[in-house]
Amino acid sequence: MSHPPILVVTTGGTIDKQYFDALSEYQIAESVIEKLLKVSRVTHPFRVVELMRKDSLELSDEDRALIRATIAAAPETHVVVTHGTDTMTDTAKMLADIEGKTIVLTGALAPARFAESDAPFNLGMAIACCQAAKPGVWITMNGSVFDALKVRKDRAAGKFTQA
Amino acid sequence: MSHPPILVVTTGGTIDKQYFDALSEYQIAESVIEKLLKVSRVTHPFRVVELMRKDSLELSDEDRALIRATIAAAPETHVVVTHGTDTMTDTAKMLADIEGKTIVLTGALAPARFAESDAPFNLGMAIACCQAAKPGVWITMNGSVFDALKVRKDRAAGKFTQA
Amino acid sequence: MSHPPILVVTTGGTIDKQYFDALSEYQIAESVIEKLLKVSRVTHPFRVVELMRKDSLELSDEDRALIRATIAAAPETHVVVTHGTDTMTDTAKMLADIEGKTIVLTGALAPARFAESDAPFNLGMAIACCQAAKPGVWITMNGSVFDALKVRKDRAAGKFTQA
Amino acid sequence: MSHPPILVVTTGGTIDKQYFDALSEYQIAESVIEKLLKVSRVTHPFRVVELMRKDSLELSDEDRALIRATIAAAPETHVVVTHGTDTMTDTAKMLADIEGKTIVLTGALAPARFAESDAPFNLGMAIACCQAAKPGVWITMNGSVFDALKVRKDRAAGKFTQA
Repeated sequence: MSHPPILVVTTGGTIDKQYFDALSEYQIAESVIEKLLKVSRVTHPFRVVELMRKDSLELSDEDRALIRATIAAAPETHVVVTHGTDTMTDTAKMLADIEGKTIVLTGALAPARFAESDAPFNLGMAIACCQAAKPGVWITMNGSVFDALKVRKDRAAGKFTQA
Repeated sequence: MSHPPILVVTTGGTIDKQYFDALSEYQIAESVIEKLLKVSRVTHPFRVVELMRKDSLELSDEDRALIRATIAAAPETHVVVTHGTDTMTDTAKMLADIEGKTIVLTGALAPARFAESDAPFNLGMAIACCQAAKPGVWITMNGSVFDALKVRKDRAAGKFTQA
Repeated sequence: MSHPPILVVTTGGTIDKQYFDALSEYQIAESVIEKLLKVSRVTHPFRVVELMRKDSLELSDEDRALIRATIAAAPETHVVVTHGTDTMTDTAKMLADIEGKTIVLTGALAPARFAESDAPFNLGMAIACCQAAKPGVWITMNGSVFDALKVRKDRAAGKFTQA
Repeated sequence: MSHPPILVVTTGGTIDKQYFDALSEYQIAESVIEKLLKVSRVTHPFRVVELMRKDSLELSDEDRALIRATIAAAPETHVVVTHGTDTMTDTAKMLADIEGKTIVLTGALAPARFAESDAPFNLGMAIACCQAAKPGVWITMNGSVFDALKVRKDRAAGKFTQA
């Protein structure tokens, strides 16, 4: 198995939320994805591009077009996208026609800065999936590898299930 | 994509080391793997079997035969094995002739009980790999999916590389 | 030194904030103070009373009167109050006339559920201060023991300083 | 209340233990005390002196004499010493004749690098105690402030109790 570099595109979402006491609220802060990869002793080559810091409910069509264009233009064929979970499937649909790449979207239901979070596990799932799965668009959440065009988020239950 | 249940076999290793003050040392304790899967919001069906609690330098041929027999007899075709990293490749070799299963070995270089550990990320890699990769034996460490028969651990450097 | 039991009164505040993905926001949840004391191997006798779960900007005069009445009526002479930091000094003023007790208010600038938080340290400060300081009202924040009637929170700077 | 600077002397102990995979064992590493103080948003002035990195079972009379000399010679009157718990009371006895200083010894039963550790809480206890208690030698462990000359460690039970 060869090990070409992985492109990691961060767009915001709960995974990157931080609590700001002076504002009495949470906001998406500088991405912690690169730090997570370092703590996880990742030596596989990768490149991180922080595209935006948005809750996925606030992503516009222009934002999704930017995500698509970034991935399409990149030399990498293995791509991970960290993204808010609420509209992850909408972005996935826009990536479906990109050929020759294995693209995996993931995120988290609890911020990575929390002591107990699904963030590192989900990131690991995506990093493995982009290497092991066949080309196409995938979502890794709740311990499952999903075909990204055949999954939905059940918001109340806090989990992804087959659509 | 269908989602058959995953068998998770735990054998010990650094991933499960705990510090016992009364003994002034680290020992492998009750596996934390099931707790990690819960914290990671895994709803994908799985079953955990705690086979042993050994440092992989102490695994005997009988131990490895037991690991093999457990996996071969199980109904699951998707299998994750958590294992000490030092002799992970030796156990992998003994699993190579099991047909029709996707078996992924992983472990960690820092105990899962540490605040900063590669454990959750590596477990996520393995859980994704057993679903996405084709049948055979794999190792997920340091952010890479390796063919388990073509990798070695560089102990001094603390990482796995292509053999 | 004798070790009479400590009364720990929890009122909410950032220290107890949890992130709820289904609501896309942080809310004060079941207090984690008792869990923090357990993780910190506290064997000193104590009793936890969860009075309310409020951001301190939302505390009313009735809320503060309830906090005061609870402390005044309790048999314990050593008291810790976990509280939002924004109006901690207002509650402290209302406790100043309670005689014969050492009352220490503390809180946190980052939720205790975060991997990196001042919560456990601040709680430890308060638990020690109620045993070591003379009777009166104290605040422990930012590594300092303050006379509670002579301190203010500098909200923008995120710290407490002598008033 | 005034806030003179605190001297923090680190000597090793479980609080600073790290796991080294290449060695398959734990060792006392670079002290994490300064980082804990930073994470805990300590703005109170302090100075950290890393004297040694020893398990307290390995401290010699010369080591304890060095700890004593460092504290006696320092300008600070408020002193915290982080120390292995096994012979903490022995070192405390050697500090009892230093006049005019409030000296607090603490440590931890689980390494600070663990996700669940008593380390930050205990450090907070000591930092508060050196400001609030009267001059003398104290130990803060298990949620209690102890007169350091009247306490012992019950090793099997993993806790400190009145001697």
